[in-house]
Amino acid sequence: MTIFVDMDEVIADTYGAHLELYNMEFNAQLKPEDCQGKGVRQCVPEQHRPLVKEYTSRNGFFRNLKVFPDSQEVLRELCKDHEVYIASAAMEYPNSLRDKSDWLDEHFPFIPWQKRILCGDKFILKGDLLIDDHYRNLKPFEGRKIMFTSPHNIDVTEFERVDNWREIADKLL
Amino acid sequence: MTIFVDMDEVIADTYGAHLELYNMEFNAQLKPEDCQGKGVRQCVPEQHRPLVKEYTSRNGFFRNLKVFPDSQEVLRELCKDHEVYIASAAMEYPNSLRDKSDWLDEHFPFIPWQKRILCGDKFILKGDLLIDDHYRNLKPFEGRKIMFTSPHNIDVTEFERVDNWREIADKLL
Repeated sequence: MTIFVDMDEVIADTYGAHLELYNMEFNAQLKPEDCQGKGVRQCVPEQHRPLVKEYTSRNGFFRNLKVFPDSQEVLRELCKDHEVYIASAAMEYPNSLRDKSDWLDEHFPFIPWQKRILCGDKFILKGDLLIDDHYRNLKPFEGRKIMFTSPHNIDVTEFERVDNWREIADKLL
Repeated sequence: MTIFVDMDEVIADTYGAHLELYNMEFNAQLKPEDCQGKGVRQCVPEQHRPLVKEYTSRNGFFRNLKVFPDSQEVLRELCKDHEVYIASAAMEYPNSLRDKSDWLDEHFPFIPWQKRILCGDKFILKGDLLIDDHYRNLKPFEGRKIMFTSPHNIDVTEFERVDNWREIADKLL
């Protein structure tokens, strides 16, 4: 089986990094529970939004993201029986490209360069399964679609859903 | 129609840049005509090969490549009627990722980030046409395959072939 796995909010804690930066810079206490059904920017006062929008353009932002629990172990197992690709819509953020490659080298060295995809649209991907947090990526994909829960997608009911990597292990291993 | 267009040796003169660097550094006069059927490294004395192998790892190597004649005009026209994606197996060279994005911004600004793919294997791409210079990319692709002539692929007879972008215009516009 050919499996595509998104990066941000599937194996990398991008939302958490936004909250951490925001809380630090604005001396706030925003938690994921406060953000259900919303993107980070929708959870902060309007005058703070332009600054929050810039976080992803900062050098090193994507290099220092935390790895989601169990994602390494489960992906390592999946790689034994399946063709596992990492597919990130990274081209929107040119500063993220090298950081994402280096981050994968550090945390997912068992996924080689041949199986890494930094792209835009994901509906050009041909495979059996896409694990992603975004409606816009899952919707047009032709194979099985699994939505990985993130605060912003909590209200989407259209797809098979997992909340963590243990649930992926239960479904796929 | 969904069209995937490779970068190196299809829209970017990577082979020429290798020859230029080599000729400068070794005071040589290697020309494309001397390299028919070979990669650049196969055309130089064995003791020079490790250095030539390093060219692609140099900062800025991919940022300063020349654009192949007519590729901009023809691609701009193709974009009017087709979904045109740039698909480069760039993940092998992490230092190339930002350079390739910036190079596209400069020379192909009409192809937006949504339609840019930096990948490894290309057989995960789902579309109608792939224009590429490499056998390993064209072979497993499911749609129409056009080999773009480069000194290294001159002996491959398996695919439909073009020598330049005017021939692509004749076939596709």
